[in-house]
Amino acid sequence: MAVRAAVAGASGYAGGEVLRLLSAHPEMEIGAVTAHANAGQALGGLQPHLVPLADRVLDPTSVETLAGHDVVFLALPHGQSAAVAEELGEDVLVVDCGADFRLRDPAVWERFYGTPHAGTWPYGLPELPGAREALRATRRIAVPGCYPTAVSLALFPAYAAGLVEPDAVIVAASGTSGAGKALKPHLLGSEVMGSMSPYGVGGGHRHTPEIAQNLSGLAGEPVTVSFTPTLAPMPRGILATCTARVRPGTTAAAIRESYAEALAGEPFTRLLPEGQWPRTAAVVGSNAALLQVTLDEAAGRLVAVSAIDNLTKGTAGGAVQSMNLALGLPEETGLPLNGIAP
Amino acid sequence: MAVRAAVAGASGYAGGEVLRLLSAHPEMEIGAVTAHANAGQALGGLQPHLVPLADRVLDPTSVETLAGHDVVFLALPHGQSAAVAEELGEDVLVVDCGADFRLRDPAVWERFYGTPHAGTWPYGLPELPGAREALRATRRIAVPGCYPTAVSLALFPAYAAGLVEPDAVIVAASGTSGAGKALKPHLLGSEVMGSMSPYGVGGGHRHTPEIAQNLSGLAGEPVTVSFTPTLAPMPRGILATCTARVRPGTTAAAIRESYAEALAGEPFTRLLPEGQWPRTAAVVGSNAALLQVTLDEAAGRLVAVSAIDNLTKGTAGGAVQSMNLALGLPEETGLPLNGIAP
Amino acid sequence: MAVRAAVAGASGYAGGEVLRLLSAHPEMEIGAVTAHANAGQALGGLQPHLVPLADRVLDPTSVETLAGHDVVFLALPHGQSAAVAEELGEDVLVVDCGADFRLRDPAVWERFYGTPHAGTWPYGLPELPGAREALRATRRIAVPGCYPTAVSLALFPAYAAGLVEPDAVIVAASGTSGAGKALKPHLLGSEVMGSMSPYGVGGGHRHTPEIAQNLSGLAGEPVTVSFTPTLAPMPRGILATCTARVRPGTTAAAIRESYAEALAGEPFTRLLPEGQWPRTAAVVGSNAALLQVTLDEAAGRLVAVSAIDNLTKGTAGGAVQSMNLALGLPEETGLPLNGIAP
Amino acid sequence: MAVRAAVAGASGYAGGEVLRLLSAHPEMEIGAVTAHANAGQALGGLQPHLVPLADRVLDPTSVETLAGHDVVFLALPHGQSAAVAEELGEDVLVVDCGADFRLRDPAVWERFYGTPHAGTWPYGLPELPGAREALRATRRIAVPGCYPTAVSLALFPAYAAGLVEPDAVIVAASGTSGAGKALKPHLLGSEVMGSMSPYGVGGGHRHTPEIAQNLSGLAGEPVTVSFTPTLAPMPRGILATCTARVRPGTTAAAIRESYAEALAGEPFTRLLPEGQWPRTAAVVGSNAALLQVTLDEAAGRLVAVSAIDNLTKGTAGGAVQSMNLALGLPEETGLPLNGIAP
Repeated sequence: MAVRAAVAGASGYAGGEVLRLLSAHPEMEIGAVTAHANAGQALGGLQPHLVPLADRVLDPTSVETLAGHDVVFLALPHGQSAAVAEELGEDVLVVDCGADFRLRDPAVWERFYGTPHAGTWPYGLPELPGAREALRATRRIAVPGCYPTAVSLALFPAYAAGLVEPDAVIVAASGTSGAGKALKPHLLGSEVMGSMSPYGVGGGHRHTPEIAQNLSGLAGEPVTVSFTPTLAPMPRGILATCTARVRPGTTAAAIRESYAEALAGEPFTRLLPEGQWPRTAAVVGSNAALLQVTLDEAAGRLVAVSAIDNLTKGTAGGAVQSMNLALGLPEETGLPLNGIAP
Repeated sequence: MAVRAAVAGASGYAGGEVLRLLSAHPEMEIGAVTAHANAGQALGGLQPHLVPLADRVLDPTSVETLAGHDVVFLALPHGQSAAVAEELGEDVLVVDCGADFRLRDPAVWERFYGTPHAGTWPYGLPELPGAREALRATRRIAVPGCYPTAVSLALFPAYAAGLVEPDAVIVAASGTSGAGKALKPHLLGSEVMGSMSPYGVGGGHRHTPEIAQNLSGLAGEPVTVSFTPTLAPMPRGILATCTARVRPGTTAAAIRESYAEALAGEPFTRLLPEGQWPRTAAVVGSNAALLQVTLDEAAGRLVAVSAIDNLTKGTAGGAVQSMNLALGLPEETGLPLNGIAP
Repeated sequence: MAVRAAVAGASGYAGGEVLRLLSAHPEMEIGAVTAHANAGQALGGLQPHLVPLADRVLDPTSVETLAGHDVVFLALPHGQSAAVAEELGEDVLVVDCGADFRLRDPAVWERFYGTPHAGTWPYGLPELPGAREALRATRRIAVPGCYPTAVSLALFPAYAAGLVEPDAVIVAASGTSGAGKALKPHLLGSEVMGSMSPYGVGGGHRHTPEIAQNLSGLAGEPVTVSFTPTLAPMPRGILATCTARVRPGTTAAAIRESYAEALAGEPFTRLLPEGQWPRTAAVVGSNAALLQVTLDEAAGRLVAVSAIDNLTKGTAGGAVQSMNLALGLPEETGLPLNGIAP
Repeated sequence: MAVRAAVAGASGYAGGEVLRLLSAHPEMEIGAVTAHANAGQALGGLQPHLVPLADRVLDPTSVETLAGHDVVFLALPHGQSAAVAEELGEDVLVVDCGADFRLRDPAVWERFYGTPHAGTWPYGLPELPGAREALRATRRIAVPGCYPTAVSLALFPAYAAGLVEPDAVIVAASGTSGAGKALKPHLLGSEVMGSMSPYGVGGGHRHTPEIAQNLSGLAGEPVTVSFTPTLAPMPRGILATCTARVRPGTTAAAIRESYAEALAGEPFTRLLPEGQWPRTAAVVGSNAALLQVTLDEAAGRLVAVSAIDNLTKGTAGGAVQSMNLALGLPEETGLPLNGIAP
């Protein structure tokens, strides 16, 4: 019998991607699809790419419409998930695509989000050490941010193996869907096409503490993170360029070996053959993360680059992957590995 | 037991898309993947988005490597399919993504292609009247051109119902993948980004006679076709704007009714609700064709617009859909209906 | 002594382009720059590309701020120009980039705009027969719409020479800046990148009657216009594909000759060598219009294609060109002919 | 009397941009325009945006065609400039847009370029301390690489003031025109649109030693450089994100003050108001460089970001700016400051 899932926030980009993946998932059945301002509208007018769901009408997001499902995906603005989750039964699997339950330190949460901390849920990045066990045992999942997913996958083998110093410098380029459907002037097509621009520079982006939390956990000591996100003229994709000084004695061979070992058997994370570097177009619509790493001997730095689709592996795909674990399904179930290219 | 398919021309865009679809098709198993200049290379370096097939090595395209499969997809340059097909057994299902067997009139073929006519195979556009029957009974399929697919789907209800005059004016915009991977200056990213440009203007494009053949067949009389293709700054997608003068007395209601009737039950062709127009981004990676039609009363013209993915419904998806029919499988098997958006 | 110009609506795309051109114009001095909602802000935050004007602060748009200039450019929403223009002296040259004074027939105006007709001003398309004389003698200029500019330049030689029938079919692709800075979901970068989509299909676009007015004036009889605009994934540029059935006996040579003759000596409109077709990237930032024309003998149609920059020749450049005429300056003064490519 | 300039390599992107700027330069007259494989062709077919030069025919690049000019711009593949320059008189101003004369250390040159070192010419980045004096006194100019221009402008105030440690980490995104017109598969529009990808990772890019040379010269000690270039889906523009650890005691106020001071009076380099970050679209076609800088206190790093047009300020604009100095003209002559946006 199919597992029934509801999707709250179905008119946004994250919610739409959850629906796309669920509708191709062999064990899932889509129940309520809900929205706030767009409630009452047909999905086809808002998400015309979801052809099989075009005639579904959006319900208002409420405990009533979300109740009675086995799984509830929350793709809501930050700060709204806790109230909804509380009202859903403890046996319901709640998968929060928002930030509310990602950070462990309440003080850090409050500094970056300005609201009281709602708590911490198991973190939906199965590739991190220990994560799969926690996800298999939970009914509450905090889906990671898209940048932290890309960065943590690129650097976890290095920090887990103690190859680099606790001072990471990261510059990442994201497609515009990462900024959502909000109507802001700088997100207009006329503004973003043909343009690269940074934002949240100097430590202000809310994904900075999440990246630091992940890397520090791996390193076993506090890791300083310099993180600069940039907006790229493409709808989807994250390219994360991540560097850290190598510890004395670290060789290129040791780096390669550590990455190969850490990624062995991973279903979605692929270390490319030496000399081939990731490109975001190769993972559009896919749950794969493509990685490459090298040693810059002159600069004394490890440079790791990852490419993911911010909406798939970076949000909805990571969510479904974690859901699979929590439901006891094979982790890969229903998740595309091929990208759409060119 | 799985049906085994070989793909010749696997390093190109059409071949890559066939592989993407086959690798997600529940009844198919991918056998030989072959290429010409790229034989001997790993697929992962050429088609990095085909993550599960990354380590497959390309065989040379030859009768030997293609033999022993149930289905052979040919994604070869025009003029090479006939020689290969002849050597494959009559019981092998040969699906030709090239132009060689699309046109019925040898004189027209020779005028547009400059080589002797190889013959005519059943035409892989199941939505056209009579096409499904022919496809179910064949071991040879001529996959339509991408533009003829988009245009024929937009206009077949109008011509089948006799609503318009036999003089169609069509302007279509295509993503650059329609031009393939050939290294030509005008296809460089620096040249295509930020630019729209026409080509093959004035009747010279090779898809013009194929469109005329389809529309004339539907109309039961020769249809004159003015066709202008344009290159758009996007990798995938065709938007076809198709107009013809309406016959006296044709009403908007009659047009809508004819379209609704002609498209009823079609698994991949969707007439959008009135007022909503197709956009190519909604069908990226999908086998769906989105349609809309209206009557311009002041101009006395029917205007029909279709959006397809040139590589999916316009090539590889149409090929697999037709293959399903020839294999006796449900027509929709393994074919995505959701697009990847945004 | 410099001519002083004010620009109303300076925070929008049209107003920004007027400022870009004026700041490079050897005879002009920029006076007041005004806006509505953005009044009080520095221009640098809104139009960061106007580097030399970055510290200019926007005044509110009002008769007070606009008074005392030799020239006033109005880049306001439709319907607001008449009230402003009335208050400015008759000796002030008013150049209206909006639609208010373009159409001659009040009934047509009211049908398409829904408001009372404000009047008709000399039409700022100097290339049309008779236009230069009218522009040299006026203090009021109605700048044409961007699509009507592209289409009229492509077809005026054909209609002026009586080569084609009074039934034109036009499909045009425009960059997104043509839609302005309005915050609408379908104009978000995530929506427009990778997508082509039509709008105003079936005769509803407000530029349709303006195109018909121009072509009818040239033909000396009413010309029926089927016009389909499409939104292309690029910030700037219009590619207009324009066709009409040729009158019996019209030859390719006659067409070419008519175009060459009609365009001889034109400073901004260039008929390309045979076989070369216009591309929008070649005219980005330029006041040039590139044209090509051919005869499709099989379809019995003339096909003319033009490429312009919608903001330059299609709006602000056309405005400055017309202004030059009205001021008695050489028509080319201060206007770029080179495009920015690639 | 006009200064006569020849442009060698006029069919490429750099040569085209030199021509665009020269044709708008009030003191310059364009003499020979030359090419190698494209000699004999009209410029209009190769550079259709250079409308006023469309009918100019390309001469072959040779000492004969280049002789007799006051200025010769060389936009040739690396390694070809020395032979040409030797044959031109010592009184001819030779401006080399290639790499041949940029590096001072022959061993470094040979390691990165694999050929014997041709020498070192005055470096055409007037904003660097001492550069203007050298440029005013020379007949030979080495135009900097596009990335070194962007990075050096972003970091020179920091290194000149001793604010940061000699260990810079730089990630830069470039438009595809930086890779030139070479026909390579990864530069096809189908491949670059919608994709970000790194290249030359780990210290291999040839601009790395040029960046290190510039920063080391400013710091007065060897500066280690980790430089990762990435290819962005846009035709033009570089966004350089540059970080280095601040020296103990460096405050945000000291950083800002140093930048303001270092950039005071610079005609093309603009420090944006606090809180506003550079975007590449704002400098398309412009010789401006937009900068912003901040202190990331948590990470202990200065982060400086610059945006330039790789073909204008990054190549041809920088070349003309340096030429102006060498010719004794005002440095800004003929150079656009406004960008083309949106």
